[in-house]
Formats: sequence, C-alpha cells, structure tokens
Amino acid sequence: MYDDVVAAARRIEGHAVRTPVVEISEGLFLKLETLQHSGSFKARGAFNRMLSAHVPGAGVIAASGGNHGLAVAYAARALGVRAEIFVPEVCAPVKVAGLRALGAHVTRTGAIYSEAAEAAAKRAAETGALQVHAYDQPDVVAGQGTLGLEVVEQTGGVDTILVAVGGGGLVAGLTVGVRGGARVVAVEPELIPTLHEALKAGGPVPVGVSGVAADALGATRLGALAYDIVSTVGVESVLVTDEAIEAARHALWAEHRVAAEHAGATAYAALAQGVYARERGERVAVVVCGANTDPATLV
Amino acid sequence: MYDDVVAAARRIEGHAVRTPVVEISEGLFLKLETLQHSGSFKARGAFNRMLSAHVPGAGVIAASGGNHGLAVAYAARALGVRAEIFVPEVCAPVKVAGLRALGAHVTRTGAIYSEAAEAAAKRAAETGALQVHAYDQPDVVAGQGTLGLEVVEQTGGVDTILVAVGGGGLVAGLTVGVRGGARVVAVEPELIPTLHEALKAGGPVPVGVSGVAADALGATRLGALAYDIVSTVGVESVLVTDEAIEAARHALWAEHRVAAEHAGATAYAALAQGVYARERGERVAVVVCGANTDPATLV
Ligand SMILES: Cc1ncc(COP(=O)(O)O)c(C=O)c1O
Ligand SMILES: Cc1ncc(COP(=O)(O)O)c(C=O)c1O
Repeated sequence: MYDDVVAAARRIEGHAVRTPVVEISEGLFLKLETLQHSGSFKARGAFNRMLSAHVPGAGVIAASGGNHGLAVAYAARALGVRAEIFVPEVCAPVKVAGLRALGAHVTRTGAIYSEAAEAAAKRAAETGALQVHAYDQPDVVAGQGTLGLEVVEQTGGVDTILVAVGGGGLVAGLTVGVRGGARVVAVEPELIPTLHEALKAGGPVPVGVSGVAADALGATRLGALAYDIVSTVGVESVLVTDEAIEAARHALWAEHRVAAEHAGATAYAALAQGVYARERGERVAVVVCGANTDPATLV
Repeated sequence: MYDDVVAAARRIEGHAVRTPVVEISEGLFLKLETLQHSGSFKARGAFNRMLSAHVPGAGVIAASGGNHGLAVAYAARALGVRAEIFVPEVCAPVKVAGLRALGAHVTRTGAIYSEAAEAAAKRAAETGALQVHAYDQPDVVAGQGTLGLEVVEQTGGVDTILVAVGGGGLVAGLTVGVRGGARVVAVEPELIPTLHEALKAGGPVPVGVSGVAADALGATRLGALAYDIVSTVGVESVLVTDEAIEAARHALWAEHRVAAEHAGATAYAALAQGVYARERGERVAVVVCGANTDPATLV
C-alpha cells in the first residue's frame, strides 16, 4: 500500500499542487492544502483515480455536491475527459453553478446524498463511465496519501500529524503515507464521529450528521478501507465541538491569514481547544485540508 | 549590502516566518508573504531594525497607520519592547484599534501622513526612542531583502521576480538579496508611480497618490536608498491599472485560494494584465506581499 502512495505521487506530479507547509511557531506546521487545485485535498485522489484507471469515452462519474465533486470536475477538465456529477436535489444552486463552470454535466436527483449516489452508480453501469468514489476506493486513498509523503519531506519529519475525518479517505491515505514515521491523530466534530464510533463498535456504523462542518465531513459512516487501515495501525481519535471549530477557523485567519473552511479548521481546533495537548518540543503538523468557503465568514 | 541581508536573515530567524512558496503552474511561483506575522512582509524589516540596533527604555517609534505600523507593533510586542505609533487623524478607528490590540501606544496627529511622521520624529528626539522607518533605512531594507534570499532558495532559482513598490524598501532589499541571480521587475499602480517617475526624473520626485492600493503603496515619493539601489542595478518598471489589480486579487482567491490585499495582488496583476509577458519556459516568482484586507471583499 505504501508503494501505491509513492506511485500516486509520481502520477499526480504536475497535476496536483505540491502545497506548501508553513511553520507558524517553533515545531508547529500547517500543511496548506487550502491551496490545492479546486480548493481541497480531494484533487489528489481524483487525479490519481483518473490517471490509474482507463477512462472510457463516457468519462468519469461521481456523486457529491461538495469538495469531491469539485475535485472530480476540476481533474476531468484538466485531463480533457467528460465528467458527470450527481448531486441531491437540495444541493445549493451556487454549488451546481460551480460544477457547471468547470464543465461538468450535473444531474440533481434524490432527496439525500445516498440517493444521488445510487443514481450515479446506476448511470455508471449503463454508460460504462469510471466511478470516482469520495473516499472508499484504493486509488483515491492512495492519492490522498501523497499528502503524507509531502508533510514528512517538507517538515523534515514530525512527531504527530493532526487530520480531519469524514469518510476517512484522507486519514487512511495519510496513515499509509507516513508509514509509522509520525503518529496520526484523527480529529472529528462531536456531531459527526464516524471514526470514533467505528473504533468503539469494531467496524463502521451509521452516525448522526450535523453541525458546521457537515458540508464536507458529513459522511454517514466511515469507509471500509479507512476502517481497515486505521484500526490496523492504531490511529488516535479525538472529538472537537463546533464552537472550537469556529474559533479555530477565525484564529487561522486573524493570526495567520490562512483562509480555511470549517472542515479545514477542524484538525487545528483540537490544538486550540486543547483536546490534543502538544508536549514541550513535540513537532506537530496540522493538515488544513480545504478552503471552499465564503471568505466573508472568516471574521 | 548583500552581507547585510544575509546577516538580517540570521537575525530574524525564528522571529519572522519563513513564508512558503507555492508553484501554481509549471515554473510560476507565488511567494506567500501574506502568511507573514502581522500580515505583510513589513515584519521582516521591523524585526531586523529592532534586533540590529540598541532599543532604549523608551522603546521604538514609527509613523504608519498601515502595515508598517502593524509590523512594528507586532515585533515590539514579540521582543517585549515599548512601541509608539503615530498616525494621521484620518486613520480609520479599526486600524487604531488593531494597533492598540498589539499593545502599541497610538498617537493621532496631523492631517496627513507626513505631519504624523514629523511629529514622530520630534517625539523620538525627545524620548530617545529608536525610529523604525517604513522603507528608507538600511536595516529595514536589509530585512525586506531576506525575502529575496528565500525566494531563490525555495524555488531553486528563477529568471524573474515581480514585486510591488511603494517607498521602495521591498524592491530594494529584494534586488540586493537576489544579487543578480534573477531579474527584478518592479510593478506599480499607474496611480502611484513612485519608481517609474523617479527613474524618468533621475531621482525621487513627488507623485500623486490614489487608487485601490493607496493604503499600502501610497508613499508620495521613492526612498533615497531604494533609488540608489534600483537605479544602480537597473530594475525594470511596469505599471498596472486599478482594474487589473482588482481582477488579479479576485483571481488569486478564486483560482488559488490566496487571500491578498490590493498591494499584495499588484505584482500578480502585471502577469494577469499582460504588461509583463512571461516567455515560454521562463521561471517567474511573484511576491504576494500582504493580506491585511477585509476577506469579504475577495469575491
Ligand atoms: C475539506 C475537507 N476536509 C476533510 C474531508 C474528509 O475527507 P475524508 O472523507 O477522506 O475523510 C473532506 C471531504 O469531503 C473535505 O472536503
Ligand atoms: C502589502 C504591502 N506591499 C507593498 C508595500 C510597499 O513596500 P515599500 O514601501 O517597501 O515599497 C507595502 C508598504 O506598506 C505594503 O504594505
């Protein structure tokens, strides 16, 4: 699996941004995945999936009105392939417009995400389009893992990496990518504890989905791949409140001029809220994983 | 002078942020000085000045309601010294509040900047406080120059660096810091052409000050130090319109999730507007020099 991440890094080079790391105080690093193409780390997995598999004439297909949809649409345009994105009917018109601006064919269907996802799967079976899953696909996980390789290289090594979790593709890939070279701490909103509950139950279970980060971290359960990886390696899981996420997001802007969406500030919230207590001299990297937000809400 | 920049880099290490560089497309780099402490590159010069000279009990004194004032207040707090900042009476209350929040003693005096600056100089003569000039002081210029060293190191070398100009401390320091290893192109708003007019006239001359970037680039004339350096080395000067600056600022956010103030987007505007035409294969770094802006205006 580590080799898959290394191969992914070679594959997506020149397509995804090698996003920078900034040391905001001694031994405390932010990995600025906010600067990734399409505004979140999701472009890594999307590019790796499309560059690993054969993309048929029907193109690629994905279900997501959020960052994954944007990333798939972005990567498809960059690679010159067709993209169909399925979103639930409730998807905000501004998001649909964003996807269309990237050249994607958008279909609104289903009351909730899972219905849109089912429709996408059905359509893929008809057209033969390549499905790009938001988190539960090996090529997607390997793509997200390239972020882990970069963090290690760019910081010269850290003790700990804090990272947010939704369906778990990011935390899983990162865990593989750092290959035991750093402890990975998974951070989740109290209101969407997919990983926390999976670890308790001994496998992915459905959880409630609400709160400020639900638009990006709102998977209803952890992915199976993520559970396997994370439970095998032994990732620590901590929970943060919505208030802590809001405060962290405002602090990232006010103190460091980093513009992050709520999901993007979630890992940092664990430090700010103190649920993750950094030790003296401990070298910590925080993944700031997305910036698809209205900047007016940063202050 | 180059040695002064190298010495400044050693001096401010651990005080100023070594801001990251991101390669947004092949061979095109952004130096993200937006992530500098206090929100602009001005912290470099402020730290270098305070760490080079003896700071008396009366502390430091500066005149500026803008980024220089913020940087001096920030550095003074970090180093535990007293800061007095003189601002003109028109200075917006929110800026005064920002300076006070950093612990600075703020004096509002004079109708325009130059009157506040005169009052600051008089006060410094009385108290013995160390004056920190916004651009026309060797330690300040050397401090800004550290940015040039970093650009060269972080990119592995570029052909060209685009940089905005107000009083010229930044462009002068950068020019010294790259030591002929890259061509420096100075970018100015058409409405505040301090360098452009100085090169035409054979020395600094007063210019009109207006337009969207006037809050940061609004020096009424180029500094004497900057003129000496820039005219000796032969820096190229290009002008951009206010419309191009606005468009560049919006593109930096929409396409790259970089939050910049108008002055911070000015150098990028030269590329976007095409007044600087990048050649095929040319490696270009653009200094994005400040982010002290209301993020609501990014879209
Ligand atoms: C900004 C951001 N952060 C984190 C996540 C969670 O990623 P994962 O589902 O791989 O856990 C997402 C998912 O959409 C996201 O958009
Ligand atoms: C963001 C920003 N960019 C550029 C400048 C211009 O710098 P200089 O006066 O050294 O030319 C300033 C000056 O305040 C600034 O605040």
